[in-house]
Amino acid sequence: MRANVFQAVNRFGIEEVERPRAGAGEAVIRMTMTTVCGTDLHIVRGEYPVRPGLVIGHEPVGVIEELGPGVTDYRPGQRVLVGAITPCGQCRACLSSHLSQCGHGAGYEALGGWRMGNTQDGAQAEYIRIPAAQANLAPIPDGLTDEQVILLSDIASTGFSGAEAGSVRIGDAVVVFAQGPIGLCASIGARLMGASLVVGVDGDEARMKMAQRMGVDVVLDHRQQDVVAEVKRLTGGGADVAIEALGTQQTFESALRCLRPAGTLSSLGVYSGKLQLPYDAFSAGLGDYRIVTTLCPGGKERMRRLMDLVHHKRVDLSPLITHRFKLADIQEAYALFGERRDGVFKVAIQP
Amino acid sequence: MRANVFQAVNRFGIEEVERPRAGAGEAVIRMTMTTVCGTDLHIVRGEYPVRPGLVIGHEPVGVIEELGPGVTDYRPGQRVLVGAITPCGQCRACLSSHLSQCGHGAGYEALGGWRMGNTQDGAQAEYIRIPAAQANLAPIPDGLTDEQVILLSDIASTGFSGAEAGSVRIGDAVVVFAQGPIGLCASIGARLMGASLVVGVDGDEARMKMAQRMGVDVVLDHRQQDVVAEVKRLTGGGADVAIEALGTQQTFESALRCLRPAGTLSSLGVYSGKLQLPYDAFSAGLGDYRIVTTLCPGGKERMRRLMDLVHHKRVDLSPLITHRFKLADIQEAYALFGERRDGVFKVAIQP
Amino acid sequence: MRANVFQAVNRFGIEEVERPRAGAGEAVIRMTMTTVCGTDLHIVRGEYPVRPGLVIGHEPVGVIEELGPGVTDYRPGQRVLVGAITPCGQCRACLSSHLSQCGHGAGYEALGGWRMGNTQDGAQAEYIRIPAAQANLAPIPDGLTDEQVILLSDIASTGFSGAEAGSVRIGDAVVVFAQGPIGLCASIGARLMGASLVVGVDGDEARMKMAQRMGVDVVLDHRQQDVVAEVKRLTGGGADVAIEALGTQQTFESALRCLRPAGTLSSLGVYSGKLQLPYDAFSAGLGDYRIVTTLCPGGKERMRRLMDLVHHKRVDLSPLITHRFKLADIQEAYALFGERRDGVFKVAIQP
Amino acid sequence: MRANVFQAVNRFGIEEVERPRAGAGEAVIRMTMTTVCGTDLHIVRGEYPVRPGLVIGHEPVGVIEELGPGVTDYRPGQRVLVGAITPCGQCRACLSSHLSQCGHGAGYEALGGWRMGNTQDGAQAEYIRIPAAQANLAPIPDGLTDEQVILLSDIASTGFSGAEAGSVRIGDAVVVFAQGPIGLCASIGARLMGASLVVGVDGDEARMKMAQRMGVDVVLDHRQQDVVAEVKRLTGGGADVAIEALGTQQTFESALRCLRPAGTLSSLGVYSGKLQLPYDAFSAGLGDYRIVTTLCPGGKERMRRLMDLVHHKRVDLSPLITHRFKLADIQEAYALFGERRDGVFKVAIQP
Repeated sequence: MRANVFQAVNRFGIEEVERPRAGAGEAVIRMTMTTVCGTDLHIVRGEYPVRPGLVIGHEPVGVIEELGPGVTDYRPGQRVLVGAITPCGQCRACLSSHLSQCGHGAGYEALGGWRMGNTQDGAQAEYIRIPAAQANLAPIPDGLTDEQVILLSDIASTGFSGAEAGSVRIGDAVVVFAQGPIGLCASIGARLMGASLVVGVDGDEARMKMAQRMGVDVVLDHRQQDVVAEVKRLTGGGADVAIEALGTQQTFESALRCLRPAGTLSSLGVYSGKLQLPYDAFSAGLGDYRIVTTLCPGGKERMRRLMDLVHHKRVDLSPLITHRFKLADIQEAYALFGERRDGVFKVAIQP
Repeated sequence: MRANVFQAVNRFGIEEVERPRAGAGEAVIRMTMTTVCGTDLHIVRGEYPVRPGLVIGHEPVGVIEELGPGVTDYRPGQRVLVGAITPCGQCRACLSSHLSQCGHGAGYEALGGWRMGNTQDGAQAEYIRIPAAQANLAPIPDGLTDEQVILLSDIASTGFSGAEAGSVRIGDAVVVFAQGPIGLCASIGARLMGASLVVGVDGDEARMKMAQRMGVDVVLDHRQQDVVAEVKRLTGGGADVAIEALGTQQTFESALRCLRPAGTLSSLGVYSGKLQLPYDAFSAGLGDYRIVTTLCPGGKERMRRLMDLVHHKRVDLSPLITHRFKLADIQEAYALFGERRDGVFKVAIQP
Repeated sequence: MRANVFQAVNRFGIEEVERPRAGAGEAVIRMTMTTVCGTDLHIVRGEYPVRPGLVIGHEPVGVIEELGPGVTDYRPGQRVLVGAITPCGQCRACLSSHLSQCGHGAGYEALGGWRMGNTQDGAQAEYIRIPAAQANLAPIPDGLTDEQVILLSDIASTGFSGAEAGSVRIGDAVVVFAQGPIGLCASIGARLMGASLVVGVDGDEARMKMAQRMGVDVVLDHRQQDVVAEVKRLTGGGADVAIEALGTQQTFESALRCLRPAGTLSSLGVYSGKLQLPYDAFSAGLGDYRIVTTLCPGGKERMRRLMDLVHHKRVDLSPLITHRFKLADIQEAYALFGERRDGVFKVAIQP
Repeated sequence: MRANVFQAVNRFGIEEVERPRAGAGEAVIRMTMTTVCGTDLHIVRGEYPVRPGLVIGHEPVGVIEELGPGVTDYRPGQRVLVGAITPCGQCRACLSSHLSQCGHGAGYEALGGWRMGNTQDGAQAEYIRIPAAQANLAPIPDGLTDEQVILLSDIASTGFSGAEAGSVRIGDAVVVFAQGPIGLCASIGARLMGASLVVGVDGDEARMKMAQRMGVDVVLDHRQQDVVAEVKRLTGGGADVAIEALGTQQTFESALRCLRPAGTLSSLGVYSGKLQLPYDAFSAGLGDYRIVTTLCPGGKERMRRLMDLVHHKRVDLSPLITHRFKLADIQEAYALFGERRDGVFKVAIQP
């Protein structure tokens, strides 16, 4: 089959590779749609190391082709969505309901976590092998198209979880730093949960425009405004929840400074090295601040719930898909997405 | 001043009574708008006992007229909304954040709870005395009219709390039994919190129409449908959360039977006598069911948050106010509201 | 192998049956200790229906004999404890962290829940087959004996979960209705979680004595005292949490009446038919009451945590094992346990 | 009356000052016992600025002398304990149940927070004025001595809240950095909540000995051991909860590194300047980590609950009081406590 293979830093492309087979507890999916993630850019640029020869991509929509021994209640031909993280459901982390931590840490069995396009071949291909299939194949409801569900696999699940981890409540004021795909989904998630006011912060014109289009109440341009002061003014003393979705020292610190006393910082960004936590950002009272980190929770139940939101028209992420490519042209897709040309926000890839 | 006074069972009306004065920790408000609650109907019908001579009504919007000793940070002339429940903030229940339980129970000081139009004179008058004013006067943001905020004092606060107590999460399926003012607000609250599907149940044409108008996804007529079966079908196995907002054995039992395994029943209704809890409604697994009771949480912070939702256009309850009356004509308002004539949903009362 | 087989109502005993084999995802354990549960009495009396020919028992301690395909990170010869409930970790309920609901309800796959000694052969045997073994085999730390861990499989896990579901906090007053094995473990669990006062209620002399021995602060005899009045007196207004561990109308109702305003009733009992929920038991304030149901949460992580408590000497349940039997003499064990003779509390069964 | 007055940096002592009077909502207490807090040392050393002339001390046990207007349900002569933080119960923070944040931040009224011995005269005196008395006077149960309750006002309340904010669950492994008064109370709190293993870290011989005496399972000496490695070994992969009770970069960082994936860091320490948050301390999975800050929650309900724990013998902090002084000799108490001489842990001060 054809697949997009990482060859070396800054070298990748379509190759003919062997079609995967389903072992015990696994399934093989014939891909019908995937996308390119910011993480995939990090991979091809060598910023996130993977083994040469790996098929890239972790967001699969497709049709069940083959079911391994022990996978029940499914049949070939079913359309399914699979989350980017494929938890096993059976290790210490999973049984503690930390699905994104599946398989990590001493004493945690290595059955899950982020595997597709990371430690095993991924989704930018004609077929993909799904680990822990029983826990991860989510049938797509009739009437939903691939484009309606593809962004649920990772960016919406991750973005929404930023709002969920922040415990956004009815009437909360929420600020979200960065309005790229994840950050914008965090904004949408905060609104979904009943935030009274959602403030998005970015400095990229296309992203600011997309945020406005998707219903973010106030979009602040950090190049032109004192964001902390403006958030304090808009909220009458500070945001209840701040969500960080970029991963820089500056946005982390600003997010913290935007909080009201006893506020919550929900961190989605991936930082490098040591992060400065400015202690003076806490109010004199000190108590009841929370900083929480989140990663894309996976599993078929998560996917089922997110598809329900689309099915019942609570959320429509299709405007975020601005460009479409054939798998054969995937290098073009990476170039466009990586250079943020032509107002690209997300791309859809079809075989 | 003029006020609507309860005289005896089925006898009430406008009388001239003395204007209240503000004692320590209290305030007097000049009323600009109030409404009539279902509970007020119970009072005049003698179903909920109060002392003859009591001024009825517990939903005040008005202007600060007088501040008692110890009330700071306010000034006469400020427009304020006051919640139906006026917690003291300082008793055992309040300090445990059970504001609606303020002052109840052994060892709990009797400073709060539901007092206006219950144990002290209420809001259907030209002036009202507000207990524990420091905890209960919520300034109305500029630009919001009385009609935009009056329903927040009780019905929206109570209805939303039905959804909040049910811990509705993004993607949940929620069914709400009864779509009167409280039940409809529970439906709106469930949607605000990110429910994927909200099913409303009623049998009254006007209420079903209002529910549809306000965005309830599916409105079931219990006179014509097997509601439990239909909810199980719509949700693929049962609702995550069921909210009961009527207070009858039948709706309570149906609500319980609509739940998926490990679901939550949030009960807003006030029942009489013994309620039958059908044990077979629980799945064989039994575990993790929750039944929670809720009452209108009060306090100025609650009111502030709810007004923020209106201010930022997350919710618009003004369509629920179908009729307007002068205080002098309040008996007409009670008649219309009590008999559910002319498609009445809620009435506004102005001096 | 020899096993205790249910033959017909009131007929059961040791038979020679075929040794089980491990299929995909399964394991076979050579039993070294089990016990008899109250539920097993219901089974042999025909009060809980199972198929004739079933091997009874759901509390296994033993040594891994055989591992099926797909079970990794274990080796034959390891000593393991298995919880009474064997969740799959991969169905809708499990991925929502309702492990005890595994496999129940529409849309929930039938892989787990209570299976051993219920829908498949159980633990009163020389060997047992463990379903979803990857999620359910909990290695026993060196130095712990079988007797130290056997009661963790069901009664301690279930009893403690009654306290956990009740969200007992430091300083809470807790009352537990019935001090049989489950109820006493609920009392111990409440104390473990920091309750300031634990009141146990029973009417059986041996159980009351055991409760006192195990550190329950006050043991009330419901035959001689007005329990509700006494709890209100001892707690200055009502218990924060009441745990019901018997399953009768009377204890349920008393538990509810013992609560302070906004208290929590955690229900472990299994009732029959309709339960009366006396509405007048709620305080006038009504709000913030919770009734929660719990069942034994299973899975190897739960077992690991409970064994840690024993390992670090936080809890010692060995006094609860009052009698020991050989598997060959299991009918004698049932007779003693069923008739509550000779101060029996729990029995240990060894091959 | 006589009181310990802050005069200038490193200058303080007993002076004759005017006896306070109770204004509206206030009370005056005749002091019977107080203590010296680490914070008081910071004050006299000029590290925490207060106005010259201030009476120091924030931990009062005494007898009600005078009640201001609006304070009900109390009578002169009652023995009471008052928490170090005196929340008003009626501001935005308090009504959101962030009692320690009372009065801080824009839009938050300045009625509460830490006031005694900070912004108003404190407890090292013959009499003290209590703000928001209705919310803060906690009657002492008969039979409890001053020494049994004095440490509940601040150090136990703060220390326990470190465990509570960390959401310690039955069976958790907890590590606590620093075993001074607050840190040791955090250890005791973790044990109270059901931790299976509590590891305390310190380098001071007297404190390590006290920790052992008070039941901390393992006490590590950071001067002699690689604490992070040892905690990982003892816990089989990392602590579920780490509590930081010192306020240095090193302990903060070590606490973070001790966590299992998806663990919780509960921070009680007060740091200066910027804190380094080493991002590599998080596991690759990243998700579900929490960092929470806590401060002494106040209010009479908190004090009531803590006194219940002492009353029912769940906790006995009296061994922590190693020395006793008369108010007249308070400078000697400061010297001993400040220099950590003679195995001093906490001192009791009586008029």
